[in-house]
Order: sequence, then structure tokens, then C-alpha cells
Amino acid sequence: MMKFYVDDLIKRALLEDVNYIDMAADYLLEDGKIAKAKFLAKADGVLCGLDVALRVFELLGDFKFERFIKDGDRVHNGDIIATVEGPVKELLEGERTSLNLIQHMSGIATATAEAVKLVHGTGASIADTRKTIPGMRALQKYAVVCGGGKNHRFNLSDAAMLKDNHIDASGGITKAVEKLKSKVGHTVKIEVETRNLEEVKEALAAQADIIMLDNMDCKTMKEAVQLCSGKVPLEASGGITTDMLRAVAETGVNIISIGALTHSVKAFDISLKIMK
Amino acid sequence: MMKFYVDDLIKRALLEDVNYIDMAADYLLEDGKIAKAKFLAKADGVLCGLDVALRVFELLGDFKFERFIKDGDRVHNGDIIATVEGPVKELLEGERTSLNLIQHMSGIATATAEAVKLVHGTGASIADTRKTIPGMRALQKYAVVCGGGKNHRFNLSDAAMLKDNHIDASGGITKAVEKLKSKVGHTVKIEVETRNLEEVKEALAAQADIIMLDNMDCKTMKEAVQLCSGKVPLEASGGITTDMLRAVAETGVNIISIGALTHSVKAFDISLKIMK
Amino acid sequence: MMKFYVDDLIKRALLEDVNYIDMAADYLLEDGKIAKAKFLAKADGVLCGLDVALRVFELLGDFKFERFIKDGDRVHNGDIIATVEGPVKELLEGERTSLNLIQHMSGIATATAEAVKLVHGTGASIADTRKTIPGMRALQKYAVVCGGGKNHRFNLSDAAMLKDNHIDASGGITKAVEKLKSKVGHTVKIEVETRNLEEVKEALAAQADIIMLDNMDCKTMKEAVQLCSGKVPLEASGGITTDMLRAVAETGVNIISIGALTHSVKAFDISLKIMK
Amino acid sequence: MMKFYVDDLIKRALLEDVNYIDMAADYLLEDGKIAKAKFLAKADGVLCGLDVALRVFELLGDFKFERFIKDGDRVHNGDIIATVEGPVKELLEGERTSLNLIQHMSGIATATAEAVKLVHGTGASIADTRKTIPGMRALQKYAVVCGGGKNHRFNLSDAAMLKDNHIDASGGITKAVEKLKSKVGHTVKIEVETRNLEEVKEALAAQADIIMLDNMDCKTMKEAVQLCSGKVPLEASGGITTDMLRAVAETGVNIISIGALTHSVKAFDISLKIMK
Amino acid sequence: MMKFYVDDLIKRALLEDVNYIDMAADYLLEDGKIAKAKFLAKADGVLCGLDVALRVFELLGDFKFERFIKDGDRVHNGDIIATVEGPVKELLEGERTSLNLIQHMSGIATATAEAVKLVHGTGASIADTRKTIPGMRALQKYAVVCGGGKNHRFNLSDAAMLKDNHIDASGGITKAVEKLKSKVGHTVKIEVETRNLEEVKEALAAQADIIMLDNMDCKTMKEAVQLCSGKVPLEASGGITTDMLRAVAETGVNIISIGALTHSVKAFDISLKIMK
Amino acid sequence: MMKFYVDDLIKRALLEDVNYIDMAADYLLEDGKIAKAKFLAKADGVLCGLDVALRVFELLGDFKFERFIKDGDRVHNGDIIATVEGPVKELLEGERTSLNLIQHMSGIATATAEAVKLVHGTGASIADTRKTIPGMRALQKYAVVCGGGKNHRFNLSDAAMLKDNHIDASGGITKAVEKLKSKVGHTVKIEVETRNLEEVKEALAAQADIIMLDNMDCKTMKEAVQLCSGKVPLEASGGITTDMLRAVAETGVNIISIGALTHSVKAFDISLKIMK
Repeated sequence: MMKFYVDDLIKRALLEDVNYIDMAADYLLEDGKIAKAKFLAKADGVLCGLDVALRVFELLGDFKFERFIKDGDRVHNGDIIATVEGPVKELLEGERTSLNLIQHMSGIATATAEAVKLVHGTGASIADTRKTIPGMRALQKYAVVCGGGKNHRFNLSDAAMLKDNHIDASGGITKAVEKLKSKVGHTVKIEVETRNLEEVKEALAAQADIIMLDNMDCKTMKEAVQLCSGKVPLEASGGITTDMLRAVAETGVNIISIGALTHSVKAFDISLKIMK
Repeated sequence: MMKFYVDDLIKRALLEDVNYIDMAADYLLEDGKIAKAKFLAKADGVLCGLDVALRVFELLGDFKFERFIKDGDRVHNGDIIATVEGPVKELLEGERTSLNLIQHMSGIATATAEAVKLVHGTGASIADTRKTIPGMRALQKYAVVCGGGKNHRFNLSDAAMLKDNHIDASGGITKAVEKLKSKVGHTVKIEVETRNLEEVKEALAAQADIIMLDNMDCKTMKEAVQLCSGKVPLEASGGITTDMLRAVAETGVNIISIGALTHSVKAFDISLKIMK
Repeated sequence: MMKFYVDDLIKRALLEDVNYIDMAADYLLEDGKIAKAKFLAKADGVLCGLDVALRVFELLGDFKFERFIKDGDRVHNGDIIATVEGPVKELLEGERTSLNLIQHMSGIATATAEAVKLVHGTGASIADTRKTIPGMRALQKYAVVCGGGKNHRFNLSDAAMLKDNHIDASGGITKAVEKLKSKVGHTVKIEVETRNLEEVKEALAAQADIIMLDNMDCKTMKEAVQLCSGKVPLEASGGITTDMLRAVAETGVNIISIGALTHSVKAFDISLKIMK
Repeated sequence: MMKFYVDDLIKRALLEDVNYIDMAADYLLEDGKIAKAKFLAKADGVLCGLDVALRVFELLGDFKFERFIKDGDRVHNGDIIATVEGPVKELLEGERTSLNLIQHMSGIATATAEAVKLVHGTGASIADTRKTIPGMRALQKYAVVCGGGKNHRFNLSDAAMLKDNHIDASGGITKAVEKLKSKVGHTVKIEVETRNLEEVKEALAAQADIIMLDNMDCKTMKEAVQLCSGKVPLEASGGITTDMLRAVAETGVNIISIGALTHSVKAFDISLKIMK
Repeated sequence: MMKFYVDDLIKRALLEDVNYIDMAADYLLEDGKIAKAKFLAKADGVLCGLDVALRVFELLGDFKFERFIKDGDRVHNGDIIATVEGPVKELLEGERTSLNLIQHMSGIATATAEAVKLVHGTGASIADTRKTIPGMRALQKYAVVCGGGKNHRFNLSDAAMLKDNHIDASGGITKAVEKLKSKVGHTVKIEVETRNLEEVKEALAAQADIIMLDNMDCKTMKEAVQLCSGKVPLEASGGITTDMLRAVAETGVNIISIGALTHSVKAFDISLKIMK
Repeated sequence: MMKFYVDDLIKRALLEDVNYIDMAADYLLEDGKIAKAKFLAKADGVLCGLDVALRVFELLGDFKFERFIKDGDRVHNGDIIATVEGPVKELLEGERTSLNLIQHMSGIATATAEAVKLVHGTGASIADTRKTIPGMRALQKYAVVCGGGKNHRFNLSDAAMLKDNHIDASGGITKAVEKLKSKVGHTVKIEVETRNLEEVKEALAAQADIIMLDNMDCKTMKEAVQLCSGKVPLEASGGITTDMLRAVAETGVNIISIGALTHSVKAFDISLKIMK
């Protein structure tokens, strides 16, 4: 990710959290006094967002860092993740924004890793969706990769997904795929959303690049897998919860996309403690 | 909230989700064709973010709306929340961003309402924290209010919270409060974070405007309540989960602040269906 | 394209062209006086950018438009493209910015249409590249489509192109494609840049989604076409000028990408005349 | 030009070209690996935009540069212009944006230098216009200066140009100049656009600071030159192409302004090669 | 001034003044209730900024206005300037920002008008400087015009001012003017700052477009006026206060520029009263 | 204040003052030539804005500074405040913006210090208001603190002020305070604006956190002070000029808020001289 891409997001976050001044720090702490603090894991999971969290401090002043664990690594309750050393006013000023970022991103990476573990050995991969928190998509998708997942398309411009409205407007799957193929560039894949085996058959015949099995039960998905026999990647999608994940993966689908990875994130507990 | 405040956030979200074009819609759907869609609740909870969700469409083109339920109202599985009528291309272009917003905000309002219900009758109110998703604070804090909660300070500029680092640097709670009172304006409240009854006593004597009881057990909190006997509002804070909420409220504290309301949000399920 | 996406670009252009005020208009023309002007084609070509050009005026005041020709249509010397009616001060204020946009975009559409015509009947399509004018990519790529061309990838995030540096770092084409396939999401196509038939063979075997034939002569390209026998789309690229275009197309390649379409644009002559 | 002025333009260009990530580089290249590359001229011309092109890399990471040729200097096919050394991922990430800028700016400088050479010895200078690519005006006008040309006004606020609409609204050239002189500040020059010798005479009598000869033939321009006998600078303007440039210059006009310098730019070929 | 130019400034001002919400209005006033208020002059002076002040409300909601006095007109204590009708919440939300703008701008216009009156009949005009409040230059310079003054250059790009540092670096006034004339475009005027009659003579001989008399006494200025005998406009500058203004004007200088017009503004008292 | 908060404001100011280039400096001064200049006080007062003024140069190039006086310190005519050493082109480019900032901020600090001195020994403190210059609030409020004053609320979100419209809409002071207390968070203070002793009594009984005495005469204010006998802070407000300040302070009010501190600023004279 480009350095300044993150900078803009961090600046907005700091403006939101600090506004003009930090009265307690500005009026009580000594200018230029140096302090050192450590990022401490308070649970077990997968780390994500350390560079972003440290960047918060770089934007506020001169800081030095030591990193002990890196994005994508397992982290355990009690681990020291990194240390931060710099002016104590700016340290306290950036603390909350820094933690809000690393906790959110590590929460996603941890949940993704759990999903990936559940489907281990089945050949299915775990993917994210466009169900993200506004403004946070790039960081959220990066966290999914850190947790071992795959990224679905980033936005509406980089792959084409045919849903019922597009299909109806075009007079069926075959015509929709055909028309779209004649228009999009050669680097674009076309995915067709299907709701039953009839539609899967039609999408297969129309040479869709990917077929999405939308809210199907496992039995139907198994039939779809057999029907397509590896000619096209199949993506299971639609309200797939943790407890059904293994069963879905065992149907033989190639990708399982899960909105909850990014729309229902549980923050991962990390604290920042000033070292005496 | 000012209209254009939301506009900037929505535009960033749309740029993130659409980027340049929506290939499927742009290449397959007819220009200017009008469609009508309904926001449908898929669960029970409290609605929040409808105006923001509809604003997405206003920024994309000419749309008409009908509202049936308003922010802060209870909503039930199957309820039609509102209808949206306008050009089908822009309708599909804005769909995901609109849903991402209303689902996130309704998720917060619903969780807050559950917490408020749990403390009903105790005199304690539920408050949010600064543990928010970067860029989303104003919308998240508005959602807490819609769920019946109260807003803690918005940022570091609008109230002063004295934590251990400030207190140590100033030579104790008494000196810290004194020094800060001589510096901040007359509209600013000073809250002191305490970790034991000794500190509560000192904060009370120093005439703090609010005393925070940080990670105390219920027994200690009860003693703090007796000690202060209503002279100063007491805020319980620190990892308070749903199952301990009632017990905390019954200690007699005035405010219970809960980070999870905004840092660990579960999206509330709402869909947008095109009406044939 | 989203309405506000263009708005930001237009506002930057207007600030650049007007800065604070238009002295001649502000000091000499009557406030609120209404004038009507026509966009007049001064050459033959393909129109592109009319909506963008008219949007300039909408951002400056209340204007009414009549459109006679639309984006993608042929236009002839002397044709009236549209009329604009509104306050004369704002009309003059926006004139240059409006013309700069429509002339640039129509220049691209016209040049693309010429290229498309040259390859007519060969089965090859004409595509753009990432060689665009900074800040203008979306408008330039839209103009290519209006001229009958296809869009190559918009940016580095939406398709993966393997060049020599990536290939060398990975230990060859086969390993590079394999490694990348294991990492990118299922919606991403992988294109491999090749410089000779050996590399074409290896890319074909590695199941690249697209093979680029980089700066090859027509004879080699013909052999590549035979070698691949339709199993993968082939893209000819690298300094392909107008006079060699037909020959390249007749080799049987599927796509011919041309940087000059967007990096060396000849403005298409359109004027805006006030109607007495 | 102010450093940060260029930074904003470069950031927009990078966001456009990279969006979130460069998949090929991010997934295949080693973090922190250093590479060195050279900017290589592929044609003869005048260099422009080197600092801007190198600034792209500075915004992405830590880079070192060696410069061998500077803006405004002649450059020959095969010349090494500069070298860039830094992290290979960021090197590839910035490559296209960097080249798009330096090729465009050098294209303008080269074309300007050709025009300047054509009028050599006549006393006429070559100037640009406001017919620029939206968002690129400052860089384009800087390139014109690098090529030996002069800048016409930057925007509508820094000099006043009286065209037919202003003149008609004011009741003739004399009245228009008079009225404007009474209103604008003392640092503003007033240029009057004329279409025949009558108007030239009136503008001269009205003491215009500059007289533009709009779309006149060479004979008329010569008469205008005699008529004004050096009392006011004369600017020839309106569709002046390369082949008529010398003849126009020999009429004795002082300035020849050419829209094509900036509206119809041919990119100058420069490549960036990684050095093994 | 372009509509959206002001919009950005107003939005920044509103964000600064309102931040997220107006608690008093949002929690106590009825949604959608309509109120009407009047802008009331509390002193005598010249009105400026009414459109800007009203635009504040347009950005916040649907408002209707009646205007009774317009920018540049005299206004008297007790005059109703305009009325505003719209939703009471947004009315109160925008009140302070609206008044801050109109009071500042009217303050400048009023002070300018006083200066203009003081020099009446002398032939000297009153001009502003670049000594403006950051971010407010365009509005401040517009206010000077409303008060009957003239605008000096807007910025460093639109006219060239030669000061001692430039002159020393170039080897004297003559060489500096000569060198600059050979470089700047034909629309640019060159003003030379002088500190004594020797320098005035040199600047006159060098054919400067304007000569600034910097911090000279009235006697010296009179001599400069005689010396130049109308061949070049003379600008008096440097700490010219109200009480010496008439004397300066009577020396025969053409322009008197006064920094205090914009750097030491006294707000003009206007209130906004809700009409019962 | 956060570093980048000031950066954005400075960049806007520089764009406004420089626009593209500084012609005189760019065309006449040698690239990279180093110069040293000193900030010189031309009057007696209180310094404010030095860091902001120096930051201007840091944003333009590599500069070194020596500071001799710091924000909040007394400064005397002839004092050298600081020196700046760096490239002379950028030094001249930033000069005006730097001075505009430090002169404005020192003007506020100086005026505040004068007001503070006038009330010395009375127990009253001097506070600012929301009557600020758009875009400058944070810097202006910081200057008030440097002059020894206190900050009133920063914006409408961080404290609640009940005015007549809110009170009327709620059915009186008692009901308005009650309703608002039930809605705002526990960190928010409620101030009530009163116009006579009846309202003071009601506000006192309603347990307002602060009572504002709006435009009362000194006699009435004295009675209000007695009436409240120290139970609630009293703020005197409304057109309080320098000559009545002492008398107001002697009534026993706790805070005197003065709009003129920020809405009618007299720039403090500081110059920047290049040292030979």
C-alpha cells in the first residue's frame, strides 16, 4: 500500500480523535519529554496493522520503533509486539488512534485465520466481500490477506458480477455474459450469480469466468460442483456462518466468501503501556 | 449533523466501492431506466442511519424516497423501512455503500439498546468511548444515541481526562486537577481516572467533575459510590461485558462506558430489494 | 462515472483557469444577463465529453442545455453539438475549461475510431494502456470506449501483469505465474509479457490468462498465434504506429494496445459561439 | 514551483495508477530489496520534468538519485538522463506515473523548442495559451519555458483580455478599455482582441497594453505592425501551424501564441530500465 | 468569484464552528420547524459579504432570502439588510459562521470607504496589499473593491515586484528589470520598489511599469512625482496611517497601498435576530 | 496542536499567496543560494505564532532556525525573535505568509495580555468567543492562551449554551436545562444566557453549570454576583470594551468574554530582514 494512502486516513482519524489539542497532555506534560511504551497483546490471534499503528506516531513527531512481531504472525496473550519511543505528549495524543487501527485490523486477521483453519485440507479458500466499513476497505482487505484469506474484487471497476437485475435486463444469463464480453476489456473476469442448478448450467455454457452459488444448501452446491467438474471456479456465498463453514467447504466449492469477516469485526485486544 | 459532513464520508466510500465505473450496470442496463427498491429488515433491532443511507443515492442522481421507520425506532424482521425510486444504474451503484452504512449504524444502535435494557431501572446510563472505527466516529456516536445511550466526549479537545501519566507528571491527583483547572476554560469538565478507593478519595477532595472507576470489581465500586454519596458522577469503565452489566449498574455508578459498542460492531441485517 | 468524480476534476480545472475572478467579465458584463451559445464542430470525428463539458457550467450557475449529438456519435465540421443558455458571466468563465475537456476527449475518441477502422474485419480489438495524462485516466479511458476501443486494466490493483523483473525475481515464468495464482484473488487475471516464442510457450504452459507479445515483429507474432491456437488471448504491444496497425492486426492477435491513444492526443477542434 | 504543489498532483496520479496495491510487485518481489534504474532518452529533444519525475519516487520511499541532464537541456537518443536507486517494489510502483509525467513535459518542451527555432532571428517570441490539459497547467507552462517559450497569462485573474462579447457589452473597444482601466488594479495589463485593422486602430487609440491579432492573414498583420509602429506589443493568435510560423514571425509581430503546444502534445519517448 | 470557491471556505468554517453537532439546537428544537430572522446593521458603514453570509445557510438546508441592501452599498445603524427563512436548527447552526463572515468583510469595506473618502479629489486611488489573513485573501480583496478601493496583485505569479534582494542579486535596478523583461510573459507588469530619488530615476530609466515609493516622506514623494512627470504610475507604500493619508495623496502619487485594510480589520457590527 | 493540522492551513495560505511561481525570485535569484534572515520585533507586546511562522519555511525547503524568544513571552521593539537560514528563493517565497501568521497571532496575544493586565487582582479571567476569523479559530484561540486568557468552548459540540430561542422552544429555563441534562453526555457543561436577575435566579435554581450575564450593566451584574454567592461561575458578555473592563471585573464576575480579541485584531508589527 502506498505510504501516503495510509497517511490521509490516519490524519482524518487523528483530527477526529484529537481535534485541536489534547488538553490534559498539553497543559500537564513537559514539552519534549521522552517516553517509551510497548504494544502488548492481551489475547491470542494474528497480528495485523503494526506498520499503520506505528505510522500514527511518525505523523505526530520523531519516534523510534522496535518491532518484535510482524503482520501476519501469530501473537499470544502477553507478547510484546513492538516498542515506541518519543515525546510523551505526542505519544499520548496518538495512542487511541493507533490502538483503534491495530485492534480492528488484528481482529479481522484473527477471524480470517480461524475460518481458514476450519476449511483446512478441503481445497476451499476463504475470501472477503465488498461488505466493508466505509473508508476502511484497503486496510480491511489487507487484514484478510494477513489472516490467510484471499481478496475478492476491490470495487465495481475491477471485475464484473452479473446479478439478477443485470441478467433480467439483458434477457437471460447467456445474453448478459455475451453482451458483457463484447464490451469489457480483456483483463476483466465475469462472475455470474446463480440461485439454482438451472442457472449454474446456463452460466457454465455461457463460459462465465466464475460462478457464484448464492445462498444454496450444501446438497445443491455438491451437485453444482459435479455439474461443473472443475471447468470453472465456484464461489459459495450468502450468510455462511462459522458452524456451517466446514460443511460448505466439503461440498468441493473453490471459494467461500464471508461478509462477516469485515462487516462484523471483533476488535483484538492490544494495549499500549508506558514503560517506567 | 451537517449535511456536507456526511457527504464527504459517503463520497470517499463510493470512490472506494465503485472507483471509476460499475461495469455490469454501465454496459448492461439502460440509461435513465427507473427502478424502485425497498430497504427490508432481516432481523429485530433498532434502526439507525436511514438518512445517511438514502443520502448515498441523492449524491448519485435524482431519487425519490418514502420513509416508513425512522432512526431510533424499533424494527422487526420483514419490516419495509423505506423505498427508493430512481435510475437503476445509480441505484445499483450506490446499493453496497448504502447498505454498509445502515447495517453498521443499526448494528450499533441495536447493541446499545440491548445494553440500555439490561440496566433499566438502576439509574445508570450507558455511554460510548473513543474506541471507534477511524473515520466513523460521528456516525457511530450518533448511533449510540439512537440506541438510547449517551455520548462520552467526542475528542481530546472537549473534556479533560486525567490518567496515570498525567497524574504522575504533575505530582499526584490533587496537584494535577488544580493545575489543569487553572488552565482550561470554564466550559471544560475534568474527569479523573482512579484505580482504587484511595485515588477516589483524592479525586473527590480535589473536586474532579467526574470520577472514573477503572477496572474495579463490583464490591469496590459499591464502596466508591458510598464514599462519594452523590457529590460527583461516577463512571464505571474497563472491559465491561454484557453478562456483568447488570451487576455493575446495581453498584450505583452513574455511567457505564463500553468500548465494544463501537469497536466490535455486529452488522444488522438489512437488504435492498428491487421491486418488480 | 459518478457525478461527483467529475465534479472534483472540473473544480480543480476551474480554479486553475479562473483563480479568483474573471476580471473582464466581472467588471464589464451585466450581472444576471442571459446568453445562449452553441458548441460547434470544426472538424470531422467522434464526439466525446459533452456531459463533462456541460457539467462545467452547471457547477458555475443555472444553465439550460439542448443536446443534438451524443458521446460516441460521429460529428462533422459545422455540426451544432449542443446549446448552452445561462448567465453570460459564468458562461464566459467556464468556456475555456469546458472546451479544454471536450476537445481533449473528442481527440482521443476520434483517434481511437480511426485505429478501430484500420483493423476492421481482422478480429483484433484496439485497447488503451496506462500511458495516460496524470489525473485524466478515467476520462481518457472513457473516450477510448466512445471511439470503439477497449479498456486495458485501469490500475495496478485490478489485473496482474508479469514483466521481466517479476519473472526474474521468481525464477522464471512458470514459477512466477504459479506463485501469483496462489496469492491473488479468484477475480484477477494474470497477463505475462513475453519477448520471444520460448517465453510464449512457457507462458502458455503456465496457463497465463493473457499473453502479451512485446515489441515482436509480425512474423513472430504470426507464429505465436499459431502456437497458442486460440487457447489464450494474445495482446500485441510496443510502439505500434498507425501505418503498421493493419499488418499487426492481420497476424491474428486478439488485442492491440496503443499508448499513443492517450499519451499523444491531438485536440479535436470544437468552438463555443455566443448566439446573437 | 512549491514542492507540495507538485506533491498533490503526483499523489492523485499515483492513486489513479496504483489504486490500493501493485499485485505483481507486492506478491512476487522481496520486501526492501534495492534496485537501480536509469532514465534513458529514446529520441532527440529538450528535457523537462526530471525533478517532478524523481519526486514520484521520493513520495513512495527512500530513493537516491544521480542527475546527468537538467530541465531545459538538449537530450539525445541514448542519453542516460538520471539514475534512481531504491526499493524495487516502490520503484516499479512509481515507474508508470514518473514516465507519464516526464514524457508529457519533455514533449511540450521539445515542441516549443522547435517553434522557437523556426522563428529565430525575427524578434518574435513563442507563447502558450490557456488551452491546457485540466490539472496540468502549471507543469505545462513550466515546460514551455524550458523549451524557450514565454508564458501567456496563467488564468483569468492575472491579466484582462477583451473579446468581442466584452466589447459589445460595453459599447465598443474605447469604452471597454476605459471602463476596465477604471476598475482593475494598477498591476493588470489589458489586452484587446482585434479582427481587422479598424479594431487595431481603435485599440491603439484606446491605449490597450497589448493588441491581439486574431486569425488575421500575414498581409493584414504586416499592416497592423506598421500601423502600431512599436507603440504596443502585438500578439498573433489563432490556429497558427508549424508551416506558417516563420511567415507569421516575419510580419513583425512580437508574440505568437500557439494552443497546440499544450493541447496537442506528442509524448517524448523516455524509458526507465532496471540496471542489472 | 466562483460559487464553489466560497463553498469550500464556508464548509471549513462550519466544521470549525459546529464540529459534529449543535447540542443545544439538536436536543431542544423541533425538527423541521421554520423560523425567519433578519440581518440588522448595528452601525453605519459599507455592506460586504451578504451573498457569502447567505450561502452559509444554503449549504445547511433549504432557505429563502430577501435582500434589501447589496454589497458595496452604504448601510446605517438599524437597517434591515436581509431576511432568512428556513429550518430553525440549521438557522442557529449557521448563525455564527454567517456573521463572522459578513462582519469581517463589511469591516474591510467600511475602512476602505473611509480611506477613499479621505483622498477624494486628489487623483490617488487606495489599494490593498498581500498582508491578508491566511485563507481569506479573495474575500478580503473583494471587500476592498466593495469599499471603493483597487486590488494590488493577488499573488506572486501575476505581477513581478522587484525588491532590494532581487535587485542586489542582479547587479542593480537596470539589470534586474532588463533580465526580468527578457523572461516574463508579455502580460506581466514589473514594479520596482525604491527607497530614494536615485533609485526612482534608475527605475524610470529602466522602464519599470510601476514604481513603488517605499516609506518615503511627503517631500521626497513630491519630488518623485515631478521627476516622473506622469510617465509611470507611482505607488506610495509603507506604514501609511489614516492621519497622514490626505497629505500623501496630495503629493500626486497615483496609488496608496495600505496593509492595515486587511491585516488589522475592525469587525463591523451586524446581528441576526429571529423574528417572532 | 498536531503538526499536520497547521500544515494544511499553511499550504492553503501559500497557494493563495504564491499560486504557481514567484516570478521575481525564480527568474532573478540563483538556485540553491543560501541566505539568512532575522525576525525583528517593531513594537512591544507578546509573541505568538513563531513555530507556525517557521513551519512555513520547512514546508518549502531545508531551513535551519535559531529561536531567541518563545510563544507567550514579552517582546520589545528591536528584539531579534529568531533567525532563518536556507535557500533564498524559498525564503522570499514564504516571507509574506510567515509574517501574516505571526503578526496576526502576536496581535491577538498582545491585546489579550492588555486585557488580562486590566483585570489583574480582581479574580476575573479573560476569555475568547466563537467570533473568530473563518479558518483561523485554532490559531486564534491558541494566541489568546499565549496572552494569558482562557478559551471559551471551541465549537457547538463541546459545551451547550442555552439562548433565548432554545429556552422559548422548551418552555422556560428550568425545562430547557432539565431536558438538555437528560440528553447530553456527562462530560458536557450547560451554560445559560440570562438578560435579567429573574433569569439568573431561574438558571441558578435549574443548576446550570455556568450562567452568562448578557449585556447587563455593572450594577445588575453585582446583584447577580451576590445572588449566586459563588455557587456557579458567572460570565459577563456583550460588547465589553477596554475602558469598561476594570469596572466589569470589579463586579465579581468570574469570566469576561470579549469577541474583539479575535474579530477585531490589530496586527503586531514584525519584519523579516535578510542579514548581509
